[in-house]
Amino acid sequence: MQKNKYIRAVIWLSLVFTFNWSAVAKDPLPSWNDGVSKQTIINFVERVTDPENPDFVAKGDRIATFDNDGTLWAEQPLYAQLMFAIERIHVLAEKYPEWKTKQPFSLILKGDIKGALSAGDDAVMDIVMAANAGMTNEQYTEIVKEWMGRATHPVSKKKFSEMIYQPMLELINYLKVNDFKNYIVSGGGIEFIRAWSDLVYGIPAEQIVGTIMVTKYEEVDGKRVIVRYPEMSFYNNKHNKVIGISNHIGKRPIAAFGNSDGDIQMLQYTTSGQGARLGMIIHHTDEKREWAYDRKSKIGHLSKGLDMAKELGWTVVDMKNEWKSIYPNSN
Amino acid sequence: MQKNKYIRAVIWLSLVFTFNWSAVAKDPLPSWNDGVSKQTIINFVERVTDPENPDFVAKGDRIATFDNDGTLWAEQPLYAQLMFAIERIHVLAEKYPEWKTKQPFSLILKGDIKGALSAGDDAVMDIVMAANAGMTNEQYTEIVKEWMGRATHPVSKKKFSEMIYQPMLELINYLKVNDFKNYIVSGGGIEFIRAWSDLVYGIPAEQIVGTIMVTKYEEVDGKRVIVRYPEMSFYNNKHNKVIGISNHIGKRPIAAFGNSDGDIQMLQYTTSGQGARLGMIIHHTDEKREWAYDRKSKIGHLSKGLDMAKELGWTVVDMKNEWKSIYPNSN
Repeated sequence: MQKNKYIRAVIWLSLVFTFNWSAVAKDPLPSWNDGVSKQTIINFVERVTDPENPDFVAKGDRIATFDNDGTLWAEQPLYAQLMFAIERIHVLAEKYPEWKTKQPFSLILKGDIKGALSAGDDAVMDIVMAANAGMTNEQYTEIVKEWMGRATHPVSKKKFSEMIYQPMLELINYLKVNDFKNYIVSGGGIEFIRAWSDLVYGIPAEQIVGTIMVTKYEEVDGKRVIVRYPEMSFYNNKHNKVIGISNHIGKRPIAAFGNSDGDIQMLQYTTSGQGARLGMIIHHTDEKREWAYDRKSKIGHLSKGLDMAKELGWTVVDMKNEWKSIYPNSN
Repeated sequence: MQKNKYIRAVIWLSLVFTFNWSAVAKDPLPSWNDGVSKQTIINFVERVTDPENPDFVAKGDRIATFDNDGTLWAEQPLYAQLMFAIERIHVLAEKYPEWKTKQPFSLILKGDIKGALSAGDDAVMDIVMAANAGMTNEQYTEIVKEWMGRATHPVSKKKFSEMIYQPMLELINYLKVNDFKNYIVSGGGIEFIRAWSDLVYGIPAEQIVGTIMVTKYEEVDGKRVIVRYPEMSFYNNKHNKVIGISNHIGKRPIAAFGNSDGDIQMLQYTTSGQGARLGMIIHHTDEKREWAYDRKSKIGHLSKGLDMAKELGWTVVDMKNEWKSIYPNSN
């Protein structure tokens, strides 16, 4: 009897260790209503993972790329990294007394965020560069982590890590258990996202493609570190998203997810490859549970992308009608 | 009896699928003679993978970086990519009649390689840029693959993929089965290495960090492609190896392997992190089976690195005495 017990234990263990339970869960996307988008995702994944299917894709080539702001988490009324930068300008102002009279910093310090941001893209870039430089990468990571653990969204009062989209978390996990490698491909700062992406999305630092600032390898206080300078090295948006993917991954993705015109090239590059491809645009249609915006919005501007979606067969996700819940633990 | 057979099969399968046979092979590095280098590697791996050890490192942080030329494969009498480039200059000469009178191209076309290369680093760069541009990344990959399948080394007459170092292949595999993520961090072209790295080393495209040329996302013949331009975007050598690692991986490696002064910063950055670290220099000491060179060689110049190895505790591998064989299927 003892022996039978042992054999049963071995059989049980063999099942536990060889079987991917997540992959057989009845509904891999429980927060998605049954509809075109959900069915498109599931059909795609089933086709590319079935060795008998002509659209089968080898594991190493199952690359999926996700925009971040507005695709994986909320971006209204301002990008989270911009809210972080504004706080940093206040913190750093002591070190830079000249900011009191220098635009756009003076406007930020007076609380006139709208004024500062309306000074144009260069002004916004000045703020972001100044706020994200002047320290080592390791120090920066700690500052971002501390902020993410504490700061709250001005409207929802939730932490930013709670304003990620539950349906997209399920999608990331569904692709992962089907041996996709998920990448974030964002206009946001690469180190800003890396500071929390593994914890929040389960996507590790090496799978983040983002905007890169000038950094230098230096000795500081006897330690060998990477120091951040307030200059742009690579702005990972629009055409550059494709270049970032190429340099970083070296493979054409088979699935791409975005929400704004900044993602057009990434989706076009992805879906113009041979074989089964999935291009998807998250359309912000829910003015109650989130925000509703597209062609007229400056943040997350989506106009040409909507037109191209029809032309190129991208799936447009109607957040209001296709998502059962928006954020984790909410509806 | 039928049932017993079935149970035995299940037990057997459970062992096969749940047990990592490679990890328990008696000698994970059979081509390494017992000695300081082999013992240093094994001690390091055992420390960082043992959860009871204070030097334990979580799987996601087990990052190892390898230089390519002279560390994973032979680099004498010329880098393989340079031999590839010289052949390409001959092929492309038809399209560029002006090369007949333009240095350094005219020298290459006359067969005076030594003369062309002694015209200085800028001349060499002109050759490499011209030879590796003017096509899409996908076309380039096919050209490199074709060359790797056919071209032979001028001295050994072996194919270049046969001039990889068997002991390093074993090391790559040993680290891989111990849940390290192996990266190549090379001054060579990122797409040049990607064309064959998975096949030859088992290291996929996304784990290559290399020199990057200017590329643009364009439409060519109705297809959306990435076109290569003969300009440098990022030269991944010396200090820039650290920046390349930071941008690409976003984690400080815990092990790094190089062979020349171009790898100093990568090894220094790696071994100056906290916790257990492994820095290793492959020293070319075998004039019979390979080449013997260090302080006086232009290719693979190793001088300051030898001095720093003593100072910083890097292990110097004596190829002649520590490697049983150099190339696969040879001794």
